Amino acid sequence: MVHNAPVLNRLVGELKKLPGIGERTALRLTFHMLKSPHSLNQLAEALLDVREHVRSCSTCFALTEQDPCQHCSGNRDNSIVCVVETTQDLMALERSNAYLGSYHVLQGAISPLKGVNPADLKIDELLARVARGGIEEVVIATNFSVEGETTALYLARQLKPLGVKVTRLAHGIPLGSDIEYVDPATVQWALAGRNEV
Amino acid sequence: MVHNAPVLNRLVGELKKLPGIGERTALRLTFHMLKSPHSLNQLAEALLDVREHVRSCSTCFALTEQDPCQHCSGNRDNSIVCVVETTQDLMALERSNAYLGSYHVLQGAISPLKGVNPADLKIDELLARVARGGIEEVVIATNFSVEGETTALYLARQLKPLGVKVTRLAHGIPLGSDIEYVDPATVQWALAGRNEV
Repeated sequence: MVHNAPVLNRLVGELKKLPGIGERTALRLTFHMLKSPHSLNQLAEALLDVREHVRSCSTCFALTEQDPCQHCSGNRDNSIVCVVETTQDLMALERSNAYLGSYHVLQGAISPLKGVNPADLKIDELLARVARGGIEEVVIATNFSVEGETTALYLARQLKPLGVKVTRLAHGIPLGSDIEYVDPATVQWALAGRNEV
Repeated sequence: MVHNAPVLNRLVGELKKLPGIGERTALRLTFHMLKSPHSLNQLAEALLDVREHVRSCSTCFALTEQDPCQHCSGNRDNSIVCVVETTQDLMALERSNAYLGSYHVLQGAISPLKGVNPADLKIDELLARVARGGIEEVVIATNFSVEGETTALYLARQLKPLGVKVTRLAHGIPLGSDIEYVDPATVQWALAGRNEV
């Protein structure tokens, strides 16, 4: 808080709403930006541009600057759809360079505690996409958290009656891990999913 | 970096220019703000407001929303001026509740390595203030860094011929410190400046 400076305090307040930014950091960022008013303007313009140009893809609901997005309009295998919670998860899958199918972004996960119900997510849109035909497999890549697993279970139940193959990302030991330090639940999964070599 | 998303990447780039914010944090902040486009707008407006309304006080050169600033227009002792490097330093002195005089913000410190010369700071303005009369003491509260000490020495040399008392903040052991862990230079200063009890 700066005394008698409502405009500065408003900026500090807005910055404090961001994750990982407290009062001290917000003040430090504010004073840093005040050193060059030009940078204040550029950040403001970048924010307004994002607000104006970034939207959800009308097919897969990923955040995108063009509609349909690059994954829906590109040369991808449309017979397989990978379902993720967020666009960030989609980006992580893209970084693996191991997936050439299409995506569907739920924009969250079912969480009764946070008041997120299936109707709040892009689940109906996914079921409609599958019902339209042409999709052979749905890979569920929601997180392995309570919410993610709940969502995966719910999706599997809704998708199977539509006659589509439903799969889930594999559990197991992460690359480069010391088995000694891997948590017991992961070791259990890795054992259950063991492959012949 | 997000592929094929120049608008998003521009925002990420602007956020990365801020101190302590790297690529990953910038991406996290961007996606956080995208969850509510309203917050994007509010932050942008707060930034533009700051750019428009925050300026330097024409007397003391502190950042302020009204000119003259609250310290120059308020009921303060104008016969004593405390010289600081930045408005943040001024705020730290105000938090001490131990100073009721006026201020002068240099907007930096002399640093030949960074190309900051006396002419780049508000030093001429300070000398003019003192020459105008009415000021009896100048308290130099620049930082105790190489740049701050250089600036303090330069200021003392310029101010003394004007017939004004020039003082410097006291060095010593900080409150609540374990003497065992205080650096030797600070102990030296504390010994040299010892007071009778």
